[in-house]
Amino acid sequence: MNSYAAQQRAYIEYTDRALNAYLSAPGIPALLARSMAYSVLSGGKRLRPCLTLVACDMLKGDLSCALPFACAIEMIHAYSLIHDDLPAMDDDDMRRNKPTNHIVFGEGQAVLAGDGLLSYAVEIMLQSIPQQNGWPYVQAARAIIEGAGVRGMVAGQCLDLANEGAVPPDEGLLMQIHHGKTAALIKAGLEAGACVAGANPQALKCIQEFGAQYGLLFQITDDILDVVGSKEAMGKTLGKDSAAGKLTFPSVYGLQGAKQHAAHAAQRAYAALEAFGADAWYLRALTESTLSRDH
Amino acid sequence: MNSYAAQQRAYIEYTDRALNAYLSAPGIPALLARSMAYSVLSGGKRLRPCLTLVACDMLKGDLSCALPFACAIEMIHAYSLIHDDLPAMDDDDMRRNKPTNHIVFGEGQAVLAGDGLLSYAVEIMLQSIPQQNGWPYVQAARAIIEGAGVRGMVAGQCLDLANEGAVPPDEGLLMQIHHGKTAALIKAGLEAGACVAGANPQALKCIQEFGAQYGLLFQITDDILDVVGSKEAMGKTLGKDSAAGKLTFPSVYGLQGAKQHAAHAAQRAYAALEAFGADAWYLRALTESTLSRDH
Repeated sequence: MNSYAAQQRAYIEYTDRALNAYLSAPGIPALLARSMAYSVLSGGKRLRPCLTLVACDMLKGDLSCALPFACAIEMIHAYSLIHDDLPAMDDDDMRRNKPTNHIVFGEGQAVLAGDGLLSYAVEIMLQSIPQQNGWPYVQAARAIIEGAGVRGMVAGQCLDLANEGAVPPDEGLLMQIHHGKTAALIKAGLEAGACVAGANPQALKCIQEFGAQYGLLFQITDDILDVVGSKEAMGKTLGKDSAAGKLTFPSVYGLQGAKQHAAHAAQRAYAALEAFGADAWYLRALTESTLSRDH
Repeated sequence: MNSYAAQQRAYIEYTDRALNAYLSAPGIPALLARSMAYSVLSGGKRLRPCLTLVACDMLKGDLSCALPFACAIEMIHAYSLIHDDLPAMDDDDMRRNKPTNHIVFGEGQAVLAGDGLLSYAVEIMLQSIPQQNGWPYVQAARAIIEGAGVRGMVAGQCLDLANEGAVPPDEGLLMQIHHGKTAALIKAGLEAGACVAGANPQALKCIQEFGAQYGLLFQITDDILDVVGSKEAMGKTLGKDSAAGKLTFPSVYGLQGAKQHAAHAAQRAYAALEAFGADAWYLRALTESTLSRDH
């Protein structure tokens, strides 16, 4: 196992232990805890929490301070998938080779599992803010909720849903949807880790730029996988987004054009990491691995 | 107009102006802003924001510091109604004499309007935390999200939904559902206003006790109105909760028993206000008005 894979595995195990503890904490109704845990503890690559942890690590912060934010962002990601899978949204029956939340618990409870995860994520972030010198933690929580919110992820999903069907290729709208749906939360996870580590404004700016470019790269390669139907496409039905007439990079630029956009985003992501020198080894390896996943 | 009604009107107008501004802020997709505003700016008695403002006012705090929390709690209340009205939940077509959100915007957008309002509420609270001496604001935000979350409102709705139908009268479960569905958020609104005003631990404890008792009183009288079918029953269909086999105070204790429980809760609410002397005039008048709404 190379050092990237070993480090990734360490981050994932660290996150999963904490997620398990949060989801079995007392006081939550058993059914609600079960339905939230069903979707959060169902594998997944834990991309977003790993980004929060590695940003903190790279800037020599205390990982235990970043952990609540890493867990919160994974809970927010899980809530968005639960709501996204609902019949009124993408209407997916399967995710990660398991029946989706509403298939198992019913639609009403699935709505509540999502609401619960978003609320619990915020609760966990706020409870981690210390009474003294809490400002970096407030900034971290703000970054995450702004990335998840009405100018971030929820905005992207609203536009995505509203523009399903026969839409003409529209570059501006495509970028708006993709920034919101994926890049905003990815960028926010990195920012949160950097804030908690006490990043200076210069370092924070580089992390934000990396996050924006890496988030874009991730979404483009996801779109490409959706078209070429790789088995790594996270349980999605083959070409489902394209079939549903959604705006994707391949639908707007063609497959080759989409690949060029991916390569450009990767280049800009690498450039944003230069300021961190050798310390950015993990984020470079991650970028490399994401860029090559369509081959 | 008496002084209670005049003060209530002033609080409502103050809140509504701020809600209008928040919901027309730039950067939110037009459709999302419209669907959120449709449900938030549809009248309503603004009970929860008034409680936040009056708690701050009574403790001589700065009302402008409590205002973001007042708006946040109203947005959280609105989100819970949008999701609660969905076909998979209570399946209501009308609320406050208007078609419900999903009837107008479709189910998918209604789910997103709710998600957006919860996220935006948190964003607004976090953005109001000052860099120096932010701790009271962190406490206020925690109170609200804990009241709204997996041990508060979402817990109550989960239990309510899971126990619909032929349930035997169960006092413990009834209290758990009602605390979660209504009292938790009402109590949290009061707490938030008190925190922002810099309440000492003694005052905060009295406010919490008042909030718990007043929240209970509010839910009992709501249950009673549902049975007796008052026109003030906030647009609910006559006796809908009882008809749906939900656990309510009248279904467990009978109408007279429920009225006795209401009277007891009101007495305990008044007792909790004694520490505040004449300054608690508004909360006394509110309790009086709530207690008498079933006549």
